[in-house]
Amino acid sequence: MKQSKWIWHPGDFELYHSMRLHNRRTKFGVYYPPMWRIDAPHSNVLLYRRIDLEKPETITVYANTKDASFLVNNVRHVLGETVTLEPGRNFIKLAGYKESGFPAFYCVGDSFASDETWKIGSWGARDLPAGTNDMYTELSDNPEVFKFSYERVFPISVENVTGGKLYDFGKETFGKIILENVKPENTSCTIICGESREEALDPANAIVHLDTEVVNGSFASITVAFRYVFVPDSLENYDLFADYEYLPLEDKGAFRSDDERINKIWDVAAYTLHLNAREGFFDGIKRDRWVWGGDAYQSYFVNYYLMNDNDIVRRTQRILRGAEPMTMHINTISDYTFYWIAAIWEYYFHTGDMKFVRSIYPQMLTTMDFVLARLDADGLYEKRRGDWVFVDWSTHFDKDSGPICAEQMLLCHAYGCMAKCAALMEDHENVTKFEALASDINAKINARYWDAEKNAFIDDYKTGNRNVTRHANIFALLYDLTSEEKKAKIIEHVIKNPEIPAITTPYFEFFELDAMCHIGDYQYMTDMLHSYWGGMLDQGATTFWEEYFPEKSRVENYAMYNQPYDKSLCHAWGASPIYLLGKYALGVRPTSPAYATYEVKPNLMCFGEFEGKVPALDGIISVKMNKDSVTVLSELDGGTLVLGDKTYPIEKNKTLCVKL
Amino acid sequence: MKQSKWIWHPGDFELYHSMRLHNRRTKFGVYYPPMWRIDAPHSNVLLYRRIDLEKPETITVYANTKDASFLVNNVRHVLGETVTLEPGRNFIKLAGYKESGFPAFYCVGDSFASDETWKIGSWGARDLPAGTNDMYTELSDNPEVFKFSYERVFPISVENVTGGKLYDFGKETFGKIILENVKPENTSCTIICGESREEALDPANAIVHLDTEVVNGSFASITVAFRYVFVPDSLENYDLFADYEYLPLEDKGAFRSDDERINKIWDVAAYTLHLNAREGFFDGIKRDRWVWGGDAYQSYFVNYYLMNDNDIVRRTQRILRGAEPMTMHINTISDYTFYWIAAIWEYYFHTGDMKFVRSIYPQMLTTMDFVLARLDADGLYEKRRGDWVFVDWSTHFDKDSGPICAEQMLLCHAYGCMAKCAALMEDHENVTKFEALASDINAKINARYWDAEKNAFIDDYKTGNRNVTRHANIFALLYDLTSEEKKAKIIEHVIKNPEIPAITTPYFEFFELDAMCHIGDYQYMTDMLHSYWGGMLDQGATTFWEEYFPEKSRVENYAMYNQPYDKSLCHAWGASPIYLLGKYALGVRPTSPAYATYEVKPNLMCFGEFEGKVPALDGIISVKMNKDSVTVLSELDGGTLVLGDKTYPIEKNKTLCVKL
Repeated sequence: MKQSKWIWHPGDFELYHSMRLHNRRTKFGVYYPPMWRIDAPHSNVLLYRRIDLEKPETITVYANTKDASFLVNNVRHVLGETVTLEPGRNFIKLAGYKESGFPAFYCVGDSFASDETWKIGSWGARDLPAGTNDMYTELSDNPEVFKFSYERVFPISVENVTGGKLYDFGKETFGKIILENVKPENTSCTIICGESREEALDPANAIVHLDTEVVNGSFASITVAFRYVFVPDSLENYDLFADYEYLPLEDKGAFRSDDERINKIWDVAAYTLHLNAREGFFDGIKRDRWVWGGDAYQSYFVNYYLMNDNDIVRRTQRILRGAEPMTMHINTISDYTFYWIAAIWEYYFHTGDMKFVRSIYPQMLTTMDFVLARLDADGLYEKRRGDWVFVDWSTHFDKDSGPICAEQMLLCHAYGCMAKCAALMEDHENVTKFEALASDINAKINARYWDAEKNAFIDDYKTGNRNVTRHANIFALLYDLTSEEKKAKIIEHVIKNPEIPAITTPYFEFFELDAMCHIGDYQYMTDMLHSYWGGMLDQGATTFWEEYFPEKSRVENYAMYNQPYDKSLCHAWGASPIYLLGKYALGVRPTSPAYATYEVKPNLMCFGEFEGKVPALDGIISVKMNKDSVTVLSELDGGTLVLGDKTYPIEKNKTLCVKL
Repeated sequence: MKQSKWIWHPGDFELYHSMRLHNRRTKFGVYYPPMWRIDAPHSNVLLYRRIDLEKPETITVYANTKDASFLVNNVRHVLGETVTLEPGRNFIKLAGYKESGFPAFYCVGDSFASDETWKIGSWGARDLPAGTNDMYTELSDNPEVFKFSYERVFPISVENVTGGKLYDFGKETFGKIILENVKPENTSCTIICGESREEALDPANAIVHLDTEVVNGSFASITVAFRYVFVPDSLENYDLFADYEYLPLEDKGAFRSDDERINKIWDVAAYTLHLNAREGFFDGIKRDRWVWGGDAYQSYFVNYYLMNDNDIVRRTQRILRGAEPMTMHINTISDYTFYWIAAIWEYYFHTGDMKFVRSIYPQMLTTMDFVLARLDADGLYEKRRGDWVFVDWSTHFDKDSGPICAEQMLLCHAYGCMAKCAALMEDHENVTKFEALASDINAKINARYWDAEKNAFIDDYKTGNRNVTRHANIFALLYDLTSEEKKAKIIEHVIKNPEIPAITTPYFEFFELDAMCHIGDYQYMTDMLHSYWGGMLDQGATTFWEEYFPEKSRVENYAMYNQPYDKSLCHAWGASPIYLLGKYALGVRPTSPAYATYEVKPNLMCFGEFEGKVPALDGIISVKMNKDSVTVLSELDGGTLVLGDKTYPIEKNKTLCVKL
C-alpha cells in the first residue's frame, strides 16, 4: 500500500492555523485583532484523481467531517465504504463540507492513496495539487491540531514578594503554565507573566494577564511567553511548572570559536529562533505572536544556516499571502510584499523545491498584478491609502514624501526574483516583462535618487530635502543596484559616517551587516556582534530583543510604544548572527540553485579559530579554520573551497585540508 | 435611543446561511454536495463609524463572539463596557473573530446605534455599508439562526400497508417530522418520506430517508419535503405530526375569476412559491433544496405580483453571487450569470431600492469583468471549460456548437441592464461601455443567427445545422431584440408552428408565455394554463412540478434523471401563472422605476369576470373587470388606466370605474 496523507484544499491548513494564531492576541486580557485581513479556510472542498488501472484494486475514503461523500466513476459512496475499482480508467471525486475547521480527506488505496497527486477542483481558478503536510500521514492524525512537542520545565527559583510569589524559569520560555494540587481547590485568580522580573511584578503594565479558573485543584493556561510568573497569595498551596511548547526542529548548523562571547551569541540566537519557529515564523512570542513578512524574511535566511527546515518556510509564505483576491499588501506593508516575492526565489535557490514554486506561482502572479496596479505614472511605488511603508522603525526618514528610494530598491529586487521564478516556470512572457521592469526601475533609482554632492542615495526625490539615511544605501549594496564606484562612495559617506544616524533594530542590522560582509568588510560585523548583540547579553538577555539602544538602561530598554514592557524580548529578527557567521565566517553559500554548486570561502575575521556546520539540502558542510589551516568536509558534491585567489574542488565525503 | 440592528460584513449573513443550506442535501442518506463553489463567510471582521458629536453620549458594544473588542478614539475596550464619548470627532472601531458562524456586533448608543450607517473595513476592497437584516434588531436575536415560523400540522389519513403505516398530510409540505410517546422509548428506524404515495412506499428509490434515533420516546427530524410519510411497524406506538416551517410572507397579490380551474392554479402556484421562499428562493424543496439563478430569476417576477418582499430578492441575489473572486458562472451556468445582472435592474425597476444597487454594484462590475474575459474574439459568449450552458432541459439543441444564439440574447439583455445600473450609479464610463456592447452584440445576433429562409433565429451559426428551437426566438420577442417584421415571422414560423418541438418545462413556459403576452397573444397563455398547469392538477398536483409531459401518466411524470422519483414535485418555477395573470390580465406594470408611473391595462382574456390585486411598493392596486366595466382602486400615485387607445389617469385612493 502507498503511504497516504491527509489532503485538503491547498493553503487551507495554513489559513486555518493562521486564523487561529492571529486571533489569540490579547492585551491586558482584551482581544487584540491583527491590523490586516485574515482569511478563513474553505468550508467546501472538492478533490479528484483520475488514473488508468491495470488490475483491480480497492479504495476506502475517510474525512474529518460527516458531511462528505465520494464518487467512484460517478457513483456516490458513503465515508468508510471500501469500493472495488475495475481495470481501466477510474475517476474518484471527494467532496466535503465543514463549518468549523477545514474539510480534509484520507484515502486508503494503492494508486489512490491520498497525497499531492490528487488535485483540487477549483471551479475555474486553477486545479492545483492537493494540500498535504508530512506531519499528517496517519488516519488518526488531526490536521486541525498543530503538532507541537512538549517538555515539562520547572522554575529555578522562587521569591516571596508583596502579595504573592515570583517564579523564575531561568530563561525566556513559551508554554502552558500549569498549577496542580491547588488549595482552595476551586477558585480563580490572576497570574501575571513577565519576560522580565519588572514586568511580572507590575500588573498594571504587564502584557500577559492570565485570568485563571482553578477547577478541582488544577489549571493549565494557554501558551504564553514568560520567564517570570507572579502568583498571588490567594492561592494557598500549589505546585507550579510549565509545559514548554515547541517544534522539534534539529539544529543542523553549528558554530564554535575561541570567542566565548560570540559562541554565546550564537546559542542565544538559535534559541530565539526556535521559540519563534512554530506554525510559521513569528515576530516575537509575547506581544504579537503573529507572522510578519519582514521578520519572517530574515528568519528564512537564519533557518537555511540553522535548521534548514523547508516546511516552515512554505507554511510561513502561505500564511503571509492569505487567500485571493489580494486587496492589501502583506501585513498591509508594501516592503513585506516585495520580500514575499523575493523569498520564493531565494527559497528555491537554497532548496531546489520546484513543487512549491509551481504551487505558489499563481499567487505570485496575482500579487504582482496587485503591485503593478498601484504604481505611479512613472512606474514607481508610492504609498497608497491603506498601505504601511515600514522599511524600519527608524524615525529619520519621511515616508509620506512620495515614492521613497528604499521601496523602489526592494521592488527592483522583487522584479528580478519574479523574472527568475517565471523562468523556472517557463513562462517566457513574464520573464521578459519582469526583466524589463527591473531594468527600468533600476535606471530610475540611479537617475533620480543618487545625489552626487552627498555621495549617497537620498530618501526621496520630490521634496528636495535630500535626506540621507542608511536604509536605501544598504539595499543598494546588498542587492547590487548600483555601480562599484557609487558603492565605494556609499561605504565612505554613509555606512562609515557617524553623522548618519545608526541603525537601532536588530532587524535592520541584518541588512546592514549582510551588506557590509557582502562587500568584504567583516570587521564591521564582528564589532557589531560584540557591542550590539553582546550589549543585550550584558543586560541579561536570554533571547534577543526587538529593538536595543546601547545607551539606555536595561529597564529603559524594555519600553516601546510608550508602554514600559511593550517591547518583545524574544524577537526572531535578533537571530541573524547565525546567518552572518555561517555565510561569511564559515563562508558557505550556494552559487547555483539547490547547492548544485556552492562555495566555501571561510574567513577567520576576529577569531583565532572556529569550526562549524552548515546544512545544505540533505547534507552537512563542515568547516574548521585557524591561522594555519582550513579543513572542509562536505556531504555534497559541487563544492569549491575559495581561499584568496586560489580555489580547491571539494570532494564529497572526503576531508579537504589546506595549509595557509 | 436609535433602533440598533445586528451588523456584520455585508454578505456574510447570506454566505453563512447559503453555506448551511447548500450542504444539507442527501440522497439515500449520503451527503450530496453542490456542483459549484460555496463560499464561507468571513472569520474576521472590522466595522467602523465616525461622527462629530455635539454633546456627550455613551456607547455599549456587544458581539456574538468572545473574541472581540472595540476601539473608541484609539483606546481599546472590552465587550459590554459602556464608554462615554465627548463632544467633537469620535471614531469607533469594532473587531471580532469567530471560527464557526460569522462575527456580528450590536451597539447600544444614540448616534452609534449599530445599523447600515456603519462601514466595513475591507482592507482595500471597498468600504461598503455594514450588512444588516430587519429580522435581527434585538440584542437577543441570533443572526446565525434563520428566523422561520412554525405551524403544527397533522396527517389527514393513515393507512396500514405491508410492514408499516403510511401517513398522508393531504398536500406537499416542508417541515420537521415529529414523533412523540414512542414505544419502545429508545430505538432507531428509517422513516421514508415521499412527495407521492408511490415514493413513500418505495424505500429503494425514495429520495428522503430519515435515519431516526428515538430517545426517551421522542424524535424530531431535520426539515424535509413530504406529503406522505411511511413509518415501519418496528415502532409500536407513537404520535406523529409535523412542524411546517415557513417564512410568514403575506400574500399581497390576489386573483379571482369565474374560471375555477384558473383560480385553483393561482392558489397552487402561490403555495408552491411559499414553500420555496426561504433563506433565498429555492428551486424545489425535496431534492436540491438549493438556490439556482434561473429558478430564482423567475421567482422574483412572481414575488413582485404576490408577496412583493424585497428582502428575499436581495438575499437570493447575494447567495447566488457568493464571494470574490468570481472564477465560475453562477451555479456554473452562464445564462444564470446573465439573469443575475438583469435581475438587479429589474429589482430596482420594481422597488426603487437604490441602497441595494449601491451595495451590490461592485460585484456587478467584477461579474462583468469575469464575463468579458471569457468571450470569444468576436465578443460572443462561447462555452468554456467548466461552464454549463443550460437554457432549458430541452434536448433539441446542441450546446457544444460554438456560441449559441440564446446565450448571446441573454448577454445582450444583461449588457442593457448593466448600462442602466451604471447610469443609476452615475458611472458614465460604464454606461457608454455597456450600451456599446449591447448594441454591438445585438447587431451580431441579427446578422449571424437570423435565417431568412427559415424565418427564425437558428441555434448556432458555425455548424451549418440551421436548427430552430423555440428558445432563442422567445428571447428575441421577450427582450425586443429584433425588428417587428422579424417578430411577426417568429410567431408564425416558430411559436405557432407545431413542427417546432414544444416546451416541456414550466421554466421555459414562463418565457414563452411572457413573450406571447408581451406581443398581445393572451389566448396562447390561457390555453396553456388550462392544459399544462391544469394537466398537473388533473394528475393530483398540490404544488407545481419541475417538468411535466402531458402525454405521460402520473407516475411516469415523477421520474427524472433515470430515477423513478427524482423529479421535484414542488418547483418554484411552476408559479409563473401569478405573474402572468397579474401583469397581463389585471394588466398592472410599472412604466418607470419604483412605480413612479405605472399602467393598468386589464384584459378580460378567456374570463367572464375577474378581480385581483397587485402589490406595488407599499401600496396595493386593485383591478376588477367584467364584460361591462373596469374598476381600479390604487393606493399609489402615477397610474394610468389603458383601455384600447384610451387612457384614464388613476387618482390615488379614489375608485375609477370605466364602462366598456
